[in-house]
Amino acid sequence: MTKKKLARNSEVIMTEMVLPNDTNTLHNLMGGKLMHWMDIVAAIAAQKHSNRIVVTASADSISFKHPISLGNVVTLKAQVTRAFNSSMEVFIEVWAEDIPANKKILTHRAFFTFVAVDQNGRPIEVPEILPETPEEIELYEGALRRRQLRLVLAKRMDPKDAVELKSIFEQEAKGDKA
Amino acid sequence: MTKKKLARNSEVIMTEMVLPNDTNTLHNLMGGKLMHWMDIVAAIAAQKHSNRIVVTASADSISFKHPISLGNVVTLKAQVTRAFNSSMEVFIEVWAEDIPANKKILTHRAFFTFVAVDQNGRPIEVPEILPETPEEIELYEGALRRRQLRLVLAKRMDPKDAVELKSIFEQEAKGDKA
Amino acid sequence: MTKKKLARNSEVIMTEMVLPNDTNTLHNLMGGKLMHWMDIVAAIAAQKHSNRIVVTASADSISFKHPISLGNVVTLKAQVTRAFNSSMEVFIEVWAEDIPANKKILTHRAFFTFVAVDQNGRPIEVPEILPETPEEIELYEGALRRRQLRLVLAKRMDPKDAVELKSIFEQEAKGDKA
Amino acid sequence: MTKKKLARNSEVIMTEMVLPNDTNTLHNLMGGKLMHWMDIVAAIAAQKHSNRIVVTASADSISFKHPISLGNVVTLKAQVTRAFNSSMEVFIEVWAEDIPANKKILTHRAFFTFVAVDQNGRPIEVPEILPETPEEIELYEGALRRRQLRLVLAKRMDPKDAVELKSIFEQEAKGDKA
Amino acid sequence: MTKKKLARNSEVIMTEMVLPNDTNTLHNLMGGKLMHWMDIVAAIAAQKHSNRIVVTASADSISFKHPISLGNVVTLKAQVTRAFNSSMEVFIEVWAEDIPANKKILTHRAFFTFVAVDQNGRPIEVPEILPETPEEIELYEGALRRRQLRLVLAKRMDPKDAVELKSIFEQEAKGDKA
Amino acid sequence: MTKKKLARNSEVIMTEMVLPNDTNTLHNLMGGKLMHWMDIVAAIAAQKHSNRIVVTASADSISFKHPISLGNVVTLKAQVTRAFNSSMEVFIEVWAEDIPANKKILTHRAFFTFVAVDQNGRPIEVPEILPETPEEIELYEGALRRRQLRLVLAKRMDPKDAVELKSIFEQEAKGDKA
Repeated sequence: MTKKKLARNSEVIMTEMVLPNDTNTLHNLMGGKLMHWMDIVAAIAAQKHSNRIVVTASADSISFKHPISLGNVVTLKAQVTRAFNSSMEVFIEVWAEDIPANKKILTHRAFFTFVAVDQNGRPIEVPEILPETPEEIELYEGALRRRQLRLVLAKRMDPKDAVELKSIFEQEAKGDKA
Repeated sequence: MTKKKLARNSEVIMTEMVLPNDTNTLHNLMGGKLMHWMDIVAAIAAQKHSNRIVVTASADSISFKHPISLGNVVTLKAQVTRAFNSSMEVFIEVWAEDIPANKKILTHRAFFTFVAVDQNGRPIEVPEILPETPEEIELYEGALRRRQLRLVLAKRMDPKDAVELKSIFEQEAKGDKA
Repeated sequence: MTKKKLARNSEVIMTEMVLPNDTNTLHNLMGGKLMHWMDIVAAIAAQKHSNRIVVTASADSISFKHPISLGNVVTLKAQVTRAFNSSMEVFIEVWAEDIPANKKILTHRAFFTFVAVDQNGRPIEVPEILPETPEEIELYEGALRRRQLRLVLAKRMDPKDAVELKSIFEQEAKGDKA
Repeated sequence: MTKKKLARNSEVIMTEMVLPNDTNTLHNLMGGKLMHWMDIVAAIAAQKHSNRIVVTASADSISFKHPISLGNVVTLKAQVTRAFNSSMEVFIEVWAEDIPANKKILTHRAFFTFVAVDQNGRPIEVPEILPETPEEIELYEGALRRRQLRLVLAKRMDPKDAVELKSIFEQEAKGDKA
Repeated sequence: MTKKKLARNSEVIMTEMVLPNDTNTLHNLMGGKLMHWMDIVAAIAAQKHSNRIVVTASADSISFKHPISLGNVVTLKAQVTRAFNSSMEVFIEVWAEDIPANKKILTHRAFFTFVAVDQNGRPIEVPEILPETPEEIELYEGALRRRQLRLVLAKRMDPKDAVELKSIFEQEAKGDKA
Repeated sequence: MTKKKLARNSEVIMTEMVLPNDTNTLHNLMGGKLMHWMDIVAAIAAQKHSNRIVVTASADSISFKHPISLGNVVTLKAQVTRAFNSSMEVFIEVWAEDIPANKKILTHRAFFTFVAVDQNGRPIEVPEILPETPEEIELYEGALRRRQLRLVLAKRMDPKDAVELKSIFEQEAKGDKA
């Protein structure tokens, strides 16, 4: 790792309007379109942290509880939580806003990971993250546990070696998937 | 549940060409675009099984190992694995094909869940799934375990009640996320 | 011709949802959008048969009898019927499905031809087609007649030399344009 | 028929730039995209003549001889040639222009037909066409022959009743498909 | 300047249908989409005059008075009014047409400027414009005044040197922004 | 006016990646695409201030000095500067960022105006703006002058009544168009 960079320096905010082609028969935003936006905003956050080309490595499980309607304004905020050699975990929050009704709700909290690569697509080391606020620190610490879950689910780690992961089944910290 | 329907009757095949706007700086398919296609093909499979409007309830974690290049042909196959009252789990397989090079590889195996709803967006019961082939039966049985993982991750189930889930940490069955 | 390949090996299935921007004032799929999809699915079938880059050479006449509605699922199936040196005729069938209403109808049967080319755009020979099923054999045999019609319409063949074509005005075989 | 309207009053000109997503691996315009544009420009011409909603009834066979490159400007000109009760034949000419190279060529001549409909999608009578120039008159007269070919190909007319059609196999008039 | 070219030789006509994704909550064309179309049609006119790659240099102020509805046909006509070394002013007129209602109104008159550049993006001289009709001559003469306003607004000219501009505050000629 | 609202409460940030279809032959962002994004971000800012549907009333003149390249990240920030009955002026700043090169520049400063309307498209009064920071106060005060310029250019105000406007030709304040 060359140096440390502040978590908040990677923050990216994206705003989208829900247009007709983004919606299903009930005139609600399709889940896949939202995941597409999440991937873009999170990739830009990872680019900002690493100053590199990045490629999506994984998307953690996402649940869709709140329908988002045609005409709503969707705000996505992404920030890198932690770096591991060439990979970065990005935390994404999504708000849907019905502006004429003056209603805005947090609809999603999600985690994507990205790998920084050179022009030939080979992984390349990135700076470490320096968390500052209590929320950033919590996200930083939870990143280890979420990484083990990813490795276990991808069968690249034996569950009995996932020391940090066990805690996920005991207490779910505030910074985890809503 | 009104009646049982065969798993294979819900099969949907979708074919897409990777166009310039779908790619990143390295001319590879962006992860978010692929998730968008996965959501569409899986939603159609859930519609076919339920003959209802469906909305995305969740996407399980997805890992991206194989870059898919500009000009590749992407084939997505989706099939409902199991129904739970108004919700359905859909299994999606993705192949990327470089036709002039005569290379085709399985790049992704993913699980999405959908809820069948009426015209007012209220959940409505769907038929049960009748699995036939050994692979369909394995996917059907694994669905219970994956469902518990979703509920635990969404903090809607206490991990110590997730009886089926424990097996995920002991042995990963063939039908699970690759 | 280097070798023969089975007709069914070129089969491609594509599934599309009719979105708002695809429709006209009556909320029905625009004919031009459907032809766009036909061209893509048929081009992929020709690529699969030839393992080459292909370019559209012609689209036979297409008639639009059944309106396809917003929200319908459109399934397109394409398969190469016969190869002539560097060109291939592709047969396309289109179904429109209103899934909540449980209605699926065959809306179109069409023929496109493609030419296989090298990286500089020069025509290059492709394998012959080996038809197996009665329908494939009928399509294979009718291809000669349809080819003469194309050449006559493009004024590249004298009608009195179009021996096979005459039959089109006597009896229309099952495999021809619906 | 309520009244006659001049052919030239239905003229519509459309200009498009060939963008990356419109092209194939060789960076040439995909045939299906061009057919999509043809359908739109021709539909507007039919709307202008009939002052009605129109739906595509058929596209005559189209051959693709000249590749059109990325960055080219494509000009499409459409004009109604003749009306038959509720249906209209539209003639479309397409030019591709490489402006920096100062080259412009006529790449396509095509015929589409449309049916004028009311708000419920039912066919409704349209004005007759009054051709003026020699080219308009030739297109007007050839329309009958092309209509018989469409009906024969769609098996809605017995070839031996297609009196006008026979001439297509004897002499191809200037106004026909290039 | 190498030679003079006629103003009318740069004329470009573009026709677009207003589709669902182009519209706001009131089902009217979004202003930004219209400006996007204006930029494309005007760029092609500047390309035709210069036979060069062109880049947008400025868009004069545009006011939106007439809402344009979903399903309307929008016609844009662009023509170069005058050239200044490597830059060209283009005049754009926009009509919106509700064809079934047989209503067509002039909705916008706008001015964009473009710079002709070589393959490395460096400005390159273009032919002068030769205006013919009274309207072309008036547009040609007004171009000097509008150019001074642009330079003053961009703070690249001292207002007291803008001799021609003063007239804009005394009398607004017919050829100016409506 | 019902009440005053803070200028900063209307702030909207939008982030876009420049994709292949957004670019011209030189692989730079097309001016019209950027104006399209400006219109969307500014419309959302006006919606946030007014909690109403808004329609674009005008775009002030925009000059394009810095080419923005394919793959760049474009950030747009919009904030309402002042309200006049039912209309609002919005100030937009645009930055282009080449992240791997670690370069970010302010490329545009622009002003759009919007009108708040009810469901029938009729203008409706909006809250006043309360500026706080020195920059917000300067933008608030300059709004009067820019409004007079718009009215004069649209020939809806006699230049000799444009008292505030005169200053634009004497000194250009920091908050004006760059």
